[in-house]
Amino acid sequence: MNEQALKKAVTELITLVLNNASAGGAHENGPIPVELSARHVHLSEKDAIALFGAPLTHARDLSQPGQFLCKERVRLIGPKGVMDNVAVLGPSRGKSQVEISRTDARALGVDAPVRLSGDIAGTPGMVLASQNGIIGLSEGVIVAARHIHMTPQDAARFGVKDGDKVSVRLASERPLVLEDVLVRVSDKFSLAMHIDADEGNSAGWKKGIDGVITARS
Amino acid sequence: MNEQALKKAVTELITLVLNNASAGGAHENGPIPVELSARHVHLSEKDAIALFGAPLTHARDLSQPGQFLCKERVRLIGPKGVMDNVAVLGPSRGKSQVEISRTDARALGVDAPVRLSGDIAGTPGMVLASQNGIIGLSEGVIVAARHIHMTPQDAARFGVKDGDKVSVRLASERPLVLEDVLVRVSDKFSLAMHIDADEGNSAGWKKGIDGVITARS
Repeated sequence: MNEQALKKAVTELITLVLNNASAGGAHENGPIPVELSARHVHLSEKDAIALFGAPLTHARDLSQPGQFLCKERVRLIGPKGVMDNVAVLGPSRGKSQVEISRTDARALGVDAPVRLSGDIAGTPGMVLASQNGIIGLSEGVIVAARHIHMTPQDAARFGVKDGDKVSVRLASERPLVLEDVLVRVSDKFSLAMHIDADEGNSAGWKKGIDGVITARS
Repeated sequence: MNEQALKKAVTELITLVLNNASAGGAHENGPIPVELSARHVHLSEKDAIALFGAPLTHARDLSQPGQFLCKERVRLIGPKGVMDNVAVLGPSRGKSQVEISRTDARALGVDAPVRLSGDIAGTPGMVLASQNGIIGLSEGVIVAARHIHMTPQDAARFGVKDGDKVSVRLASERPLVLEDVLVRVSDKFSLAMHIDADEGNSAGWKKGIDGVITARS
């Protein structure tokens, strides 16, 4: 056995030990379906009515139970740019929220922070328009922090809990490991990791790509 | 020492051993300055003259010795979109080449493959325009594969050689490990890792961010 082969064998053994140790022994690491969240907005019922004159209407179910793509579309108007035909997700929420990539943020001219969905205090605002109305949000524009939705059963088999951060490897065309991926656990969720368009493009993401947990913290 | 603290200590020890093993013992892992390559074109002298009526002119030196940003700018015209004010890098090359992100490729409507700079056989073409001229490239549009420029001295201290692929960790706002990073060695290079705008946005890259080699293959 030459030096290189020995080194490879030792490395593989150590990796195995390391994975087992960080997995707390017998936990699974994947596969976790990875979905790309394109830019989209969530609307309060009041904002939906201001824009469309009626509540949101269902077009297609999404992977998370109860969540759906709406027939309605909006225009995002920022100080530096405009984006048309942006998806609206339902059902309506307590507060409106705009989720964009950092690339979008630059094009629109807003300094959107990386935040977990719903955590919008102190974020920038945006003007939203439809063919029937226009509204100004005083806050709510974020770059969504990468995260994994999972059930309590998933959390148990992966050996993680709500609020944990994990590293996830995507064995895609441009393979990478995304660190600081937030774990969100609820019995209303379905197992899916959500990344944004920048992360998807960096990885060479395609529909059907899975992720594997490589570290827990 | 509780189970968690023990696990942490063992993990740290194993990581140390693992890094040492994969580094071949005494090699360095970083820091490596990480630079973001925004979309740009390289032009042949003939194409530069067709577009600007004169050879390229120097505006500002870049990190790689002899490479410079030009005063000239071009418009990229694809089947689905147009991008203005795109940087031209000099000096002129044997063949013109357009380097864009996957986000740009989608907006322009071209299916640009991930390639190493210079490897343009079979890639899509693009129309380039200036205020004085317009040309059609029959090929040359790529998404540049992430890579590290280094000198033979850098390669020796990192324990790598030209053509190797390494994994590099960016401890940025959105930390990640980019795998399959190509090592390019020449005494004409200066140490710098080049990533594209999608990779930069995914990482929350800012000027001054360094990378560290976490694995060699």
